[in-house]
Amino acid sequence: MRRLTVLRAVPEFARGMPRDLRVRWALREAGLDYEEWVVDRAELGTPTFRRYQPFGQMPVYQEDGLTLFESGAIVLHIAETDEALLPRDLAGRAETFTWMFAALNTVEPPVRTLAEIDFVMTDENERRRRRPEAEQRVRTRFAEVDAVLADREFLCARFSAADILMVTVLRIVAQAGLEADLPALVAYRARCEARPAFQRALQEQIATFDRHAASE
Amino acid sequence: MRRLTVLRAVPEFARGMPRDLRVRWALREAGLDYEEWVVDRAELGTPTFRRYQPFGQMPVYQEDGLTLFESGAIVLHIAETDEALLPRDLAGRAETFTWMFAALNTVEPPVRTLAEIDFVMTDENERRRRRPEAEQRVRTRFAEVDAVLADREFLCARFSAADILMVTVLRIVAQAGLEADLPALVAYRARCEARPAFQRALQEQIATFDRHAASE
Repeated sequence: MRRLTVLRAVPEFARGMPRDLRVRWALREAGLDYEEWVVDRAELGTPTFRRYQPFGQMPVYQEDGLTLFESGAIVLHIAETDEALLPRDLAGRAETFTWMFAALNTVEPPVRTLAEIDFVMTDENERRRRRPEAEQRVRTRFAEVDAVLADREFLCARFSAADILMVTVLRIVAQAGLEADLPALVAYRARCEARPAFQRALQEQIATFDRHAASE
Repeated sequence: MRRLTVLRAVPEFARGMPRDLRVRWALREAGLDYEEWVVDRAELGTPTFRRYQPFGQMPVYQEDGLTLFESGAIVLHIAETDEALLPRDLAGRAETFTWMFAALNTVEPPVRTLAEIDFVMTDENERRRRRPEAEQRVRTRFAEVDAVLADREFLCARFSAADILMVTVLRIVAQAGLEADLPALVAYRARCEARPAFQRALQEQIATFDRHAASE
């Protein structure tokens, strides 16, 4: 039995963004089924939810008595069961680990900062003050990833769990138009998003929102 | 052959901070020797260094023809060779992965933001404007970790790679006095920092700075 927290509803702009998408994608790449554990955003801060997730964050994943949280950890756990997502040999693992952490620790922090300025910040003066530098930091990281991708199809020797993490990070600020001069990055994201497992995961996330919106 | 990038010099306040400490600690816990690959901060942005590390960041680690970067990935790679740092059973791995990513993706981003405000930001007005919220975010995460540690000695069932990452994150803002009301967190950090492998790793980092300072 596999069970993944999914949000009942998010603002329109955030559809296709919540981090359960990473886990849904990994599960579909690995050919694994799962049940949805639907939660309201308001539940995340409650003591009940925090018994599963002490930071009150999405997603939480359960499997045969195990409870994991942190999307990176869950994707790594799933990837360990599927050689197509994480090679078994030392060199392949080392390369995949490197790019998984690069996606979440080097690229995602500035991306989250920019997304917060664009989507959460309500003080317009503060936004104007802070946005240029925040955008520049994302541009720098995106250009570095673009340079890496100039001569390769995926971050590692072949598609891997690292691409699931990197692409779902890139998507967070996809509307900001920062990829315009980065053809390798654009082609890479399109290549990954065209995968049937990604398409299915995305449709499943959207379908959950639609189903609950219709029932309200 | 193992080789780890270490910085030749850092400002006084940053001694004991650079992320090679995480790797040195993991190596010493695992009983592994390594060579130092000494780099100047100015080298990090060069095309030569970027051939090893496309983001121009520390640390880089080489072992028998493999090159890894991202401190989290390197620690995970080393931990895979030592059951004491990363259990071999599924449940133990799942728990360790969860807390490794929690340290680097949930706790470290606000810690880095605060550290940047305290150590890098030169505009005093900007600092005054931004610091209270940045500090509050760190306090929230620290309190959540403190609550988790109330009834356990380490993040997982026993000391693991996750503690190496969490403690080296907590240390970044240790001077800010944010742990005062968090006795479980304080005791946890002290317990981990008392380990011989940590003490040796820290001494080795400091010794490198001292050696190069003396030779200038």
